[in-house]
Amino acid sequence: MSVKLEIAQDILLNLVTVMLTERVALSECWRRILGETVRSDMDFPPFDRSPLDGYALIAEEVVNATPENPVCLKQIDYIPAGGTPNTSVSFGTACRIMTGAPLPPVATGVVRLEDTIVNGDNVTILDGRGADKNICFRGEELFTGEEIVSEGTIINAGVMGMLAVLGKSRPYVFRKPRVALVATGSEIIPVDFPLVPGKIRNSNSYMLSAQVAEAGAQTILLGNASDNVDEISHLLESASDCDVFITTGGASVGDYDLIGEVYKKMGITLLFDRVSIKPGMPVLAGIRDGKIYLGLSGNPAAAAISFEQLVRPVLMKMSGRKTWWRPRIKAVLAAPFKKKTGAKRFVWARCWQTGTDILVEPSGAQGNGMLKSAMGANALIVIPENSPPLPIGTEVEVILLADA
Amino acid sequence: MSVKLEIAQDILLNLVTVMLTERVALSECWRRILGETVRSDMDFPPFDRSPLDGYALIAEEVVNATPENPVCLKQIDYIPAGGTPNTSVSFGTACRIMTGAPLPPVATGVVRLEDTIVNGDNVTILDGRGADKNICFRGEELFTGEEIVSEGTIINAGVMGMLAVLGKSRPYVFRKPRVALVATGSEIIPVDFPLVPGKIRNSNSYMLSAQVAEAGAQTILLGNASDNVDEISHLLESASDCDVFITTGGASVGDYDLIGEVYKKMGITLLFDRVSIKPGMPVLAGIRDGKIYLGLSGNPAAAAISFEQLVRPVLMKMSGRKTWWRPRIKAVLAAPFKKKTGAKRFVWARCWQTGTDILVEPSGAQGNGMLKSAMGANALIVIPENSPPLPIGTEVEVILLADA
Repeated sequence: MSVKLEIAQDILLNLVTVMLTERVALSECWRRILGETVRSDMDFPPFDRSPLDGYALIAEEVVNATPENPVCLKQIDYIPAGGTPNTSVSFGTACRIMTGAPLPPVATGVVRLEDTIVNGDNVTILDGRGADKNICFRGEELFTGEEIVSEGTIINAGVMGMLAVLGKSRPYVFRKPRVALVATGSEIIPVDFPLVPGKIRNSNSYMLSAQVAEAGAQTILLGNASDNVDEISHLLESASDCDVFITTGGASVGDYDLIGEVYKKMGITLLFDRVSIKPGMPVLAGIRDGKIYLGLSGNPAAAAISFEQLVRPVLMKMSGRKTWWRPRIKAVLAAPFKKKTGAKRFVWARCWQTGTDILVEPSGAQGNGMLKSAMGANALIVIPENSPPLPIGTEVEVILLADA
Repeated sequence: MSVKLEIAQDILLNLVTVMLTERVALSECWRRILGETVRSDMDFPPFDRSPLDGYALIAEEVVNATPENPVCLKQIDYIPAGGTPNTSVSFGTACRIMTGAPLPPVATGVVRLEDTIVNGDNVTILDGRGADKNICFRGEELFTGEEIVSEGTIINAGVMGMLAVLGKSRPYVFRKPRVALVATGSEIIPVDFPLVPGKIRNSNSYMLSAQVAEAGAQTILLGNASDNVDEISHLLESASDCDVFITTGGASVGDYDLIGEVYKKMGITLLFDRVSIKPGMPVLAGIRDGKIYLGLSGNPAAAAISFEQLVRPVLMKMSGRKTWWRPRIKAVLAAPFKKKTGAKRFVWARCWQTGTDILVEPSGAQGNGMLKSAMGANALIVIPENSPPLPIGTEVEVILLADA
C-alpha cells in the first residue's frame, strides 16, 4: 500500500471537510480564518470628508490664490471631527474644518491650515491650488453591498482594520482543528525527565506542535507511550474531542512497529502505510468516524517532512483556507546536491537573492535525525524522483517556508 | 523637527533596550524569542544506535551476501528500543535490533529486516551491502558543549524540537513588549457601537494590534478617547505596566491635533514630530522614564506604514531579535507607478515569480484611508525620494511582508 505523494494527498484531502465556524472577539482574530463573506452595509467614508485640517470652501474661488494675490474669506462655521456642519458655504465664506469632519454643503474643496492666515473671523487664503483634491468622497473606499472580504481569508492587519471599519466586533471564524499528538517508543521519555542510558527525550511532539500552530491548528499534547498497543490506543481514545490524531514512531516495518496493530485494535481503516518520498516514507494513514489518523516516523526530519507534505494541506483545508499549499518558486543551486534520488526528495534549505537571481542551498546535514538543518531552513528544495546528482547552477523548485 | 526616516529609526532604536527574560513551558514557546544560548550537555545520539529494524552484526562479514550466496548467522541477543545490549557480537553472530536501540559492542553495521530470513535463532542475510552505513554514531548530531541555538533565535519547529532534545522544558524567552493602543478623535466610536452620522469606528487599534502581534509583542487595547488632552493622558497613564504607548490621530498640525499637548502635560520629551515618508509623515515620538510614546496618524494606511517603518524595528529589538528588519529583494514593476515622489514612499504591493523573474505591482488604490490595498499585499515597494513616475520594467526594491 505504498502510494505516490500526490495520491496520498488526494486521498486525505478528499476525506476531510471544513470545520464549523465560531464567533470570536475581533481582538483575538489575528491569523484566524474568516468564516463568513463580509459585505459593506454602508458607504465609507460615510460622508464627503476632509483629509486634513483647514478651511472648506468653494475651490473655484481660490484656485489662483497666491501670497501676492491672496483671497480673503469670512469664517462662518467650525466643524470639529465628530461634528456636523451647521450651515453651507457660499462665495466669500469658508468653514474651519478638522481632519475627518464632514464637508459642509456646497463646499468643493479644502485648503490646508498651513496655507492660510487667520485673524478673527477673517481667513486669508495664500495658496488654493489643488483644494478640490482635498476631499475624501463618500463611498470612495467602500460602497453599500460591496463584497469586501471573502470567506477563507486569513485575518492579517489590513483585514483586521477592515472588519473593525464594518463593525464586525465578533466575526465568524473557522474553528481551529484540534490535533492530538502522541509520541510512541519505549526509548522515549518526557522532556522534563532526567536522561538515563538508552532513553531519549520526546522531541517530536514539540516540533510537531509548532508545525500544527503554524498551520493554524491547535495542539493537544497527549504525551508519550511505550511500544504497547493498549497504551497507545488508550491515549488516542482519551482525546475524543480531537479532529486529527498523529502518532510518531512505530510506523515502519518491524516487531515494535505497532501503529498498524493499534489501528486494527481501534477499528481504524488503513488508507495507506507508506508514501514514496524521502525522508518521510513510513506514514500510516487511517480513518474512523470521519476522523483522520496519521502514523509518522519517529525520526524528526522524516516526521517533519511527512507533516509538511501530508498533514499541513489537510489542516489548511479543514481550517477553511482557500489555498492549501505553500508558495513555490524556481531557484538556482548554489551548492551541488551530490546524492542521486530515487523517491521524490525534500531537502531543508536556505534561499536568498543575489542581484536578481534567487539562489538556494541545503541548510546542513540532512540525515534522518537531523533537526539542525530544519532549524535554519527557510525553504525546501524539491528534487524530482529518479534525479541524478545535481551540480551547482541547476534550476530547482523550492517551497518557501514562512516560519523562518 | 521633521527628520529623515533613517534618523528617526536610529533615535528610537538607540533609546530602547532588550526586555528581560522569563521561563515559559516549551509547549507555549512557538514564535517566542530564545532568551538564552543553549549548549548541548550531552552527545546526541547518546550512543551508537540503529536507524532501522534489523540485525546488528560485523559488517565486513556480510558485505558480499546475496540471495544466491547468503550468510547464515546465529541470533544471540535482542535489543528493543529503550533497551540495552546484554552481550557483544562476534563473527558468526548477530543481535536483533530495533530502530533507535543502542548497537551492541563490536557491531559495525546493521542489516535491514527486509534483507533477512529468520528461522528460530538462525538468521540468513540476503543482502549485506551498506550495512556499515546503517549506524547513527554517538554525537553525530550534537556533541557535549557545542553551541546549538543562540540567544535571539526565533523558536520555529526545528528549534522547538531541538530544545526538547536538550531537555529545555521551560526555556528562557524574552518577555513580550507590552504595547498600549489608544485611538483618539471625537469622531471615533468603539467597534461594537452603532454608527451615527459623523462617526466612524475605531479600526486603527485593531489593525495595529495585528501588526503588534506579528512583531511578536502583546497589545493592551485601551480603547478610544475624544480630542481631549485630559482624556487621552488619563488613558495613557492608566497603563503603567506597558512598555510602548501608541496613539492614533491628532498627530498633524491643527487645533484638534492634541498629541503634542498630551506629551507636554505628561512630561514626555518630544523627540521628533514628523518623518519624511509618505504615507505616514505625521509621527510624534517621545520618551519618558525610558518608555517610548508614539503618536501616529489617524489615517489607517499612514498609521500602518509608520508602524512598519518605526515601531516594528523597535519592538523587534526590544523582543531580543537578532535582525530587526524584514527581508528586502529586487523586483521588476509589472505595472507603472505614475506618481512622482517627493519624500520616500512605501506602496502596498503584490509580488510574484514568473519564470525566474520576480515581478511586483501595487495592490490597489493607495489613498491615505485605503485599507483595501493593505489587505491583499504581500510586499511594500520602496520608492526613493525625488523619483519620477516609474514605467513598467523598472527595477525596484521590495520589502517582503510575511503576514500575507
